[in-house]
Amino acid sequence: MAPTTRLVVPIDLTKKPSEQKVPLHNRLHPDIPPVAEITEGEVFRVEMMDWIGGAIGDNDTALDLKTINLSEGHYLSGPFRVLDKNGVAAKPGDLLAVEILNLGPLPGSEWGYTGSLDREHGGSFLTDHFPAATKAIWYFEGIYAHSPQIPGVRFPGITHPGIIGTAPSMELLHIWNEREGELAEKGHKSLTLSKHLHQRPFACLPTPDGCLLGKIEPGTPEWERISKEAARTIPGRENGGNCDIKNLSTGSKIYLPVFVEGANFSTGDMHFSQGDGEVSFCGAIEMNGFLELKCEIIRGGMKEYLTPMGPTPLHVNPIFEIGPIEPRFSEWLVFEGVSVDETGKQHYLDASIAFKRAVLNAIDYISKFGYTREQVYLLLSACPCEGRISGIVDSPNACVTLAIPTAIFDQDIRPKPRKVPVGPRVVRTPDVMKCTYDGKLPTTKNPSASA
Amino acid sequence: MAPTTRLVVPIDLTKKPSEQKVPLHNRLHPDIPPVAEITEGEVFRVEMMDWIGGAIGDNDTALDLKTINLSEGHYLSGPFRVLDKNGVAAKPGDLLAVEILNLGPLPGSEWGYTGSLDREHGGSFLTDHFPAATKAIWYFEGIYAHSPQIPGVRFPGITHPGIIGTAPSMELLHIWNEREGELAEKGHKSLTLSKHLHQRPFACLPTPDGCLLGKIEPGTPEWERISKEAARTIPGRENGGNCDIKNLSTGSKIYLPVFVEGANFSTGDMHFSQGDGEVSFCGAIEMNGFLELKCEIIRGGMKEYLTPMGPTPLHVNPIFEIGPIEPRFSEWLVFEGVSVDETGKQHYLDASIAFKRAVLNAIDYISKFGYTREQVYLLLSACPCEGRISGIVDSPNACVTLAIPTAIFDQDIRPKPRKVPVGPRVVRTPDVMKCTYDGKLPTTKNPSASA
Amino acid sequence: MAPTTRLVVPIDLTKKPSEQKVPLHNRLHPDIPPVAEITEGEVFRVEMMDWIGGAIGDNDTALDLKTINLSEGHYLSGPFRVLDKNGVAAKPGDLLAVEILNLGPLPGSEWGYTGSLDREHGGSFLTDHFPAATKAIWYFEGIYAHSPQIPGVRFPGITHPGIIGTAPSMELLHIWNEREGELAEKGHKSLTLSKHLHQRPFACLPTPDGCLLGKIEPGTPEWERISKEAARTIPGRENGGNCDIKNLSTGSKIYLPVFVEGANFSTGDMHFSQGDGEVSFCGAIEMNGFLELKCEIIRGGMKEYLTPMGPTPLHVNPIFEIGPIEPRFSEWLVFEGVSVDETGKQHYLDASIAFKRAVLNAIDYISKFGYTREQVYLLLSACPCEGRISGIVDSPNACVTLAIPTAIFDQDIRPKPRKVPVGPRVVRTPDVMKCTYDGKLPTTKNPSASA
Amino acid sequence: MAPTTRLVVPIDLTKKPSEQKVPLHNRLHPDIPPVAEITEGEVFRVEMMDWIGGAIGDNDTALDLKTINLSEGHYLSGPFRVLDKNGVAAKPGDLLAVEILNLGPLPGSEWGYTGSLDREHGGSFLTDHFPAATKAIWYFEGIYAHSPQIPGVRFPGITHPGIIGTAPSMELLHIWNEREGELAEKGHKSLTLSKHLHQRPFACLPTPDGCLLGKIEPGTPEWERISKEAARTIPGRENGGNCDIKNLSTGSKIYLPVFVEGANFSTGDMHFSQGDGEVSFCGAIEMNGFLELKCEIIRGGMKEYLTPMGPTPLHVNPIFEIGPIEPRFSEWLVFEGVSVDETGKQHYLDASIAFKRAVLNAIDYISKFGYTREQVYLLLSACPCEGRISGIVDSPNACVTLAIPTAIFDQDIRPKPRKVPVGPRVVRTPDVMKCTYDGKLPTTKNPSASA
Repeated sequence: MAPTTRLVVPIDLTKKPSEQKVPLHNRLHPDIPPVAEITEGEVFRVEMMDWIGGAIGDNDTALDLKTINLSEGHYLSGPFRVLDKNGVAAKPGDLLAVEILNLGPLPGSEWGYTGSLDREHGGSFLTDHFPAATKAIWYFEGIYAHSPQIPGVRFPGITHPGIIGTAPSMELLHIWNEREGELAEKGHKSLTLSKHLHQRPFACLPTPDGCLLGKIEPGTPEWERISKEAARTIPGRENGGNCDIKNLSTGSKIYLPVFVEGANFSTGDMHFSQGDGEVSFCGAIEMNGFLELKCEIIRGGMKEYLTPMGPTPLHVNPIFEIGPIEPRFSEWLVFEGVSVDETGKQHYLDASIAFKRAVLNAIDYISKFGYTREQVYLLLSACPCEGRISGIVDSPNACVTLAIPTAIFDQDIRPKPRKVPVGPRVVRTPDVMKCTYDGKLPTTKNPSASA
Repeated sequence: MAPTTRLVVPIDLTKKPSEQKVPLHNRLHPDIPPVAEITEGEVFRVEMMDWIGGAIGDNDTALDLKTINLSEGHYLSGPFRVLDKNGVAAKPGDLLAVEILNLGPLPGSEWGYTGSLDREHGGSFLTDHFPAATKAIWYFEGIYAHSPQIPGVRFPGITHPGIIGTAPSMELLHIWNEREGELAEKGHKSLTLSKHLHQRPFACLPTPDGCLLGKIEPGTPEWERISKEAARTIPGRENGGNCDIKNLSTGSKIYLPVFVEGANFSTGDMHFSQGDGEVSFCGAIEMNGFLELKCEIIRGGMKEYLTPMGPTPLHVNPIFEIGPIEPRFSEWLVFEGVSVDETGKQHYLDASIAFKRAVLNAIDYISKFGYTREQVYLLLSACPCEGRISGIVDSPNACVTLAIPTAIFDQDIRPKPRKVPVGPRVVRTPDVMKCTYDGKLPTTKNPSASA
Repeated sequence: MAPTTRLVVPIDLTKKPSEQKVPLHNRLHPDIPPVAEITEGEVFRVEMMDWIGGAIGDNDTALDLKTINLSEGHYLSGPFRVLDKNGVAAKPGDLLAVEILNLGPLPGSEWGYTGSLDREHGGSFLTDHFPAATKAIWYFEGIYAHSPQIPGVRFPGITHPGIIGTAPSMELLHIWNEREGELAEKGHKSLTLSKHLHQRPFACLPTPDGCLLGKIEPGTPEWERISKEAARTIPGRENGGNCDIKNLSTGSKIYLPVFVEGANFSTGDMHFSQGDGEVSFCGAIEMNGFLELKCEIIRGGMKEYLTPMGPTPLHVNPIFEIGPIEPRFSEWLVFEGVSVDETGKQHYLDASIAFKRAVLNAIDYISKFGYTREQVYLLLSACPCEGRISGIVDSPNACVTLAIPTAIFDQDIRPKPRKVPVGPRVVRTPDVMKCTYDGKLPTTKNPSASA
Repeated sequence: MAPTTRLVVPIDLTKKPSEQKVPLHNRLHPDIPPVAEITEGEVFRVEMMDWIGGAIGDNDTALDLKTINLSEGHYLSGPFRVLDKNGVAAKPGDLLAVEILNLGPLPGSEWGYTGSLDREHGGSFLTDHFPAATKAIWYFEGIYAHSPQIPGVRFPGITHPGIIGTAPSMELLHIWNEREGELAEKGHKSLTLSKHLHQRPFACLPTPDGCLLGKIEPGTPEWERISKEAARTIPGRENGGNCDIKNLSTGSKIYLPVFVEGANFSTGDMHFSQGDGEVSFCGAIEMNGFLELKCEIIRGGMKEYLTPMGPTPLHVNPIFEIGPIEPRFSEWLVFEGVSVDETGKQHYLDASIAFKRAVLNAIDYISKFGYTREQVYLLLSACPCEGRISGIVDSPNACVTLAIPTAIFDQDIRPKPRKVPVGPRVVRTPDVMKCTYDGKLPTTKNPSASA
C-alpha cells in the first residue's frame, strides 16, 4: 500500500499564529517542547504561516510593513523530535539529514509579497539608498510568479524554506547571546566598516516582546524564563536557522548538527522565490506554505563529518546537497562590484561592499528599461538571481557579481548598439507601494547619477 | 571565403616576457602604446604568457612560488586599439563589447599550476591558516585537468582570462592611486575587520620594480615617468582588469567602459579553471593560453547603459553576459559560513568572513576523505566550485555558501550513515609541494580541531 | 486580491469513472458536450483519474493488467469550451495555447503503476520478447518515485499529461476512422515491416464496448450514434491527443489546432514519469493526477502558423514549448540500435526497428547489474530516459539511441575494467509481478544470449 | 613534466586524400593495415579531412555536391592498433574505451558546409520533397557557426566525429555484405514502407570505384581483393562507424567492441554541428577537423557488458557516455509528427515516417519567418535540434518530435497572438545555393500548402 503522508502541523489561515491548533513558536531555545515525534524514513507534511504570521496583507499599502513588529517574526512550525526506527531519539553529536521531498504555497493561498523595511525599523541591505518601507504583491500561477506592481516580469520560483534548523543546547544558546550582545553593545566602536552598512540594528537580542513559545503558555514561570533567554530567529547560526539559501528547494538534503536530544528541529519562513542575498530584507516572495520532509539520523555524524572551528565543539555549520529540480536559465546578464564604496573610498577585500556595489549597478541598469529603482530593488530581492564571490584575493578589491537571468523580462535587456529603449520610454506602471521615510538618518546620494 | 583569424600577439615560450616579439606589459596606464589595431567585427587571436611570465616551473618544488616577485605580474597582451568599420577609434564614453569566441591553453603547453604564496610575500585568503608557499601542478587532457599532487580528482575546466580591461584615463588612474595609497597608509587604523583578513598587503602601489611597459623602452624618460604612475594589475577596478570571474568563458560577452581613445584594452592571466574566490591567490590553474575575440563599439554606451556611482562619472563597472558552454554538473555538496570568526567573535554582516568560514568548513570536511588540508585548499582554489552570497540582511550574520560539484571526485564524498572512509584510511599521496614558513606572524589555530 | 484557481473537474477516487460528479469521457467526437466553459487567462484546475479509471490496483498481482478492457481507456476530463474575454468562443482555424502551470498526483493518491499487457490483449513494443502481462508499483515521495518491485532505483519524475487534445470535427473524425480502418483491414497485406512489430493490434476502431461519453446518457439515441463513430483515444493524431510526450511538464505551452467551436479540449492519462517511447505500453508511471492550466486563443492561428500537409487543411499537428523546470542530469549512458532485426535481417532506414534494438541492448546491459529483464523493461518505460533519432540518412541503417541518466541507480552502472558486479551477484528482489502468457504466438528468442 | 600529445595523423589540406603523409582509407576491412600504434592512457591527436576529402568548395555553387562521387567517402584516419601498457594488443572480445578529450576544426580551416544530394545521386531524408542538390557554407567564429546563405541564425556547435569504429573481422564483414546485398537486390519487393522513403539507394555495396585502402597500394593484388570485399562506410553497424550521433562531443567516452587483434579503430567525418537525424544527408556542418583521444582496453568486455542479439555473437552495438560540455539551451519549440504519410495514408508505428512529418512540419513553420524551405531544411540538418521518439506504442501512430532551440534565431519564432511576421515580410537573403533537378522521379506535392 502507498505510504500516507502524515500532516503534523496544519495551518488555519483564518486564525492568528498564537491560535493555531498545533502551536507555533518564534524563538530558539532547548526547552521549547516538541509538537510531534517523527520517525526516520516516514514522509510527513508541515504547513507554515508566512514569516510574520499574516501581518502583511494583499492590499494597496506598505504601511503594514512600515509598522511591523520585528520581534514577532519568524513564526516557526515545530519543534520536531526525531526518533530512529527503534524509537531511540537523535542525540547530541548526531547529524540529522532532512530531505525536502516537496514544497509549495499553502493551497488556496497562492500569493506572496516582497518588501523593504523602514530604515529606523530594521532597514535592508541598501537602506541608506532606500530608507522607506516598500511593498509589492506577487500572484502565483503554478510555478510562476508575477506582480501587479512590477509589470513585465514573470519567473518560475526556486521555492524553499528560509529557515530550517535544530534547537540549540543551553551552552550554544549562551554563546549566541554573549557574542551578539557584545556586538550590539560596542557597535560602531568595534567596527569601522562602510558606514552605510552600519545604519541597521547590529543584532536582535532576546526579548519577551512578541515572544511565542509553542506549548508553553504565556505568563507561566517557564515562559517568563525562556522568553528572556531564547534566541531571536533573524540570523542563521550553527544550528542552521535563517540561512535564506535560495537553492534549498525540492530534492535538497540538509545535514543539521544535533545539539539536544531529539534534535527538535523547526522550519518556517517559506519563500516562493528569492534572489541571492535577499537584499531588501523582507525580500524573498514571502508566503504561507508547506513542506513534505523525510529524516534520517546519522549517528555520531557531527564528529564524523563536521570539524568545529572556534572555542568549542559546537562551532560548526550545516552542510547540504542541492536537489535536481531547479528552473533552467541559459542566458544571464552579470553585474560586478568591487570594494570601493559610494563615496569613492577604498575598502579592503570587503565582499559585502562589493556585493552592495554590484546590486546598485544592477538596479541602475535595469531601471533604464522603464522601471523605478524601487521596483528593481524588490525584483532583485525576489527573482532567482545569483550573487557570486568571484575574487576575494586581489587586494584591495573583492570582486562580487550579480547574475540575472534575462528570460524573466518581457523585453530584451541586453546592451545593444542602439539606444534603450527603442521608441517612447516604457514606463512600467504602477510602481511598488511606498511609505514616506520620516526619520532623520542621512541617505546616500549619488552625485554622478543625475538624470 | 572563410574569414581568417589574425594572430595579433604571438607568444614564444622559449623567450622571456620582455623578449616577446610583440611586447607585453604589466601595468595599466593611458600612455602605454597599443600594439595592434583591431577593427569591429574581425576575429583575432591573442596569445598570452601565464600571469608571472614563466617564473613558475613544472618541477618538484614550491620554492619558485615562495620567492616570486609580485611586482612583475601580470604580464598582459595588448593594448589593442579598437576602430569601427569606418576606421574611427572607440572614444571615451563608448562601451566596448568584447566577445570571447574561443580560448584554451597555448598549444604545446598543456599544463598549469595552482599555488599559495608565503604569508610575508603576498599571502592568500586563508594565509593565517596556511602561511607557507605551496604548489600543485595540473596536466590537461583536452577539457580535463588532473594533478599528480592532488590525486583522485579530475574535472573539466571553465577556462577564462583572469584579466580583461580597458586602459584608464589619467583622471581614473589618479583616483586609483589616491584611494589605494590612502588605504595602504592608514591600514589597520582605518579598518577593524577581522584581524585574520588583515595580515596581507593592503594594496600594491605603483613601483618601477619589475615594470614592463610594452613598446616603451626601459630607461627612457617616458618609462621613468610612467613606471612611477602606472597602476598595478592586482585588483579589478572600474576598467575591468583582474576580476577573476570564472564564468568569463567561451561565448561570453564583456561590456567594458572606454576611458581613452581607442579603448586600448589588454588581457592576460589565463586560467584553465578557477573556483569562485580564487582563494589561494595564485589559485586558479594558471597557464599560458590564447583567446579568439571579436569587438563591437557601442557609441555613447557608458552613458546609455552604465550609471556611475561615486564622486565622478568614471566610477562605473563593466557588465557581461555568460556564454552557453560550461560544464554541466547536477550534484553539489554545499558548505555554509556565517560571519563569526575563528575565535568565536561576532562580526556584522561581513560576507568576507562568512566566505572564509565556508571555505574552512569545506576544507575540513573534504580532508576527511584522505586529503591533507593543503591539498583541499589548492583544490578549492582551482576547481569549478561556486561561492554564493546567500543571505546578506539577517543581522548580524551574512550567510555565504560554497558549492562543490561532487562529480570531480573519484569517490562519493556525501555524508552517509556509515563512517567515512569505509575501510582503511585512504591517504591521497603525494601531497602538494610545500615550503617552510619562516616568518614570525602568528597563525590561526583551531582549538576544536584536535584529531 | 490573489486570483483563485477554479476547480472545474473534481475527482472522487471512491467512485467509478462513470459516477464522477463532472462526467468523464473516453472517446473523441465533436458531439460530446463540454462540461465547463473556460475564459482566456483564467487559471483553472482539472483533476483526472488514471488512464483506466482505477481498474489497476496497488496490490500484489498483475492479473488486473492481464484482463484489462482496453476499450475503456482513456478516461478523460473535459471537454472544455474556451471563450475569449469577450465571451466569444474559439473557432475552427484558431490555435488554442494551453499553458501547464502546475501538475502532480492527486493529493492522497501518491502512487502509480507501470505494466506491460499480454501479447494477445494489446501487447507492448517488445511484446514478442515479453509476451506476458507484468506490473510494478511506484510510490511517490514528493518529486521522487521508487518501486518495491524494482529495487535500487529512485528518480524525480518529469510529470505530464499523456493526453491533451481538442475535439475533432466530423470531417476529421471520418478521416481517422477511414485510414485506421483500412490499416486494420489490410494489415499484413499492406505492410512488410519486421514481423516482430506486427503482432499487436493494428488499430483500435470505434466500438460501443466500454464507451463513456460524458454528459450523454448511455442508451439514448445520441449515445448509440456517437459510440459507433467516436474515435478511440489510443493514438495521438492531428488534434494532439495521446502523444505521450514526456517533456510536456510544468511550464510547457501547447498550441492545439481548433476544429470545432469552443475548441472542446480534453486531457487525461497523467504520468508521474515516462521514458521516451513508453515502451511497455502501460509504460509510464500511470496515476491519478491534477493539472492547473491557462488558455489563450490565437485567432486564425492555424492558418498563420501551421501548414497542413496531406489531402485536407485538417492534416496538421500541434506544436509546443518545453517548460523551464525539469530534473537535471549530467551523466548519461547511451545505447545504440541500427535497423537490423533480431534475426539479423537488414531493414531500410527503419527507426522503429533501430529503436527496438537500442532498447533491447539497454535491457540486456542493465540486467547484468542484478536485475531481471522484466524489471529493466518496465524501468526503461517509466524513467526519464531519452530516445533519439541520431541518424536517419545513412542507408540502410537508421541509428537510434537510448540515453539513460546514471544517477537514478544506487550503483555505478558504467563499464569498468573490472568485471560487473564486483563480488557476489547482486540480485534485485523482489521481481516485478508477472502473469503467465497462455497464448500461442511465437516469441522472439535470442540465440546468442545464452547465459 | 606535462605529457605531450602525439600527432599520429597530420593532414595537409593542400594535398589530396590519396597524397597524405599518413595514408587515409575509405573502406572497412580487417586487412587494412594500421597506420600507428597507440598505448592505453596516452593522449594522441588525429587530424581528419572532411568526409569527401576536399571535393566540396567554399564557393558559390552547389554543382560540386550534385556531381559528387559517393563511393569516395568517407575518408578516414587510422586504423589505429591499440596496445595495453605491457605492449599486448587489444583482442577480439575486448571492449575499447575511447575518450574524446578535445576536438575542433583543423586550425586555419574554420569553415564547413551543409548540403543535400541530388535525388538520383544519393538523395536525402526528404529527397522526394527536395530532389535538387543544395549547399550552404558555414563560417566558424570560435564555438559559433553562421552561414551567409542562411541569415539570421548563429549557434554554438556540438562538435563530434560522425564516424568512429573498429575494424570488422572477416566474419562480420561477410554478415554485412550478405544482408545489405540481399536488401539491395530485393528492394521494394521486400518492403512496402512509405514509398517516399524508398526512392533512395537501398544500400551501398562494395566497389573498387574510388576505393582508398591506406598503406595498400592501388593495383596490387591485395588491393584488388580487398577493394571488392571491403564494406562501404555509409551506415553505422556493429562496429560503430557512421553513427552520426551529435552528442559524441568533448568528454564523451565510446565503448567499441573489438573484432580483430589491435582493435584497428578509425575515425573521420568531423561535424562542427549536426541536428538529430542529419536529415539532408550531407547534413551536418561537414569540416576538416581534429580529435584528441585516449584509449583504454577493457579485457573481455564484450562478453562482460554487451549481449549479442542475432544469429552470432558479433551482433552487438557500441555504448557510450555523453560528456559534460554541451551548449545549454533553455527554450525549445517542438514539432510533432505521427505515422500518417503526406498522402494521408495510415502507417503502423513507423517512427521514420513520424519523424519525416515532424521535420516537414518544422520546415513549413520556420519558413513563415522569412526563410525558403530549402534554407530551413539545411538549417535543421545542421543545428543542434533534437529528434525524439516520444511514443512508440500507441497503435497505429508513433509520435516523434523535433525540438529546436529558439535562441539560435535573431527573432522570436514562437507563436504569438498577432500575425507573423509583424510588418513587411522578412525575406532572409541570399538563399542557399541550388542546382536544378534533372531527373524524372516524381516529387511529393503538398496539395494543402498553397500559399
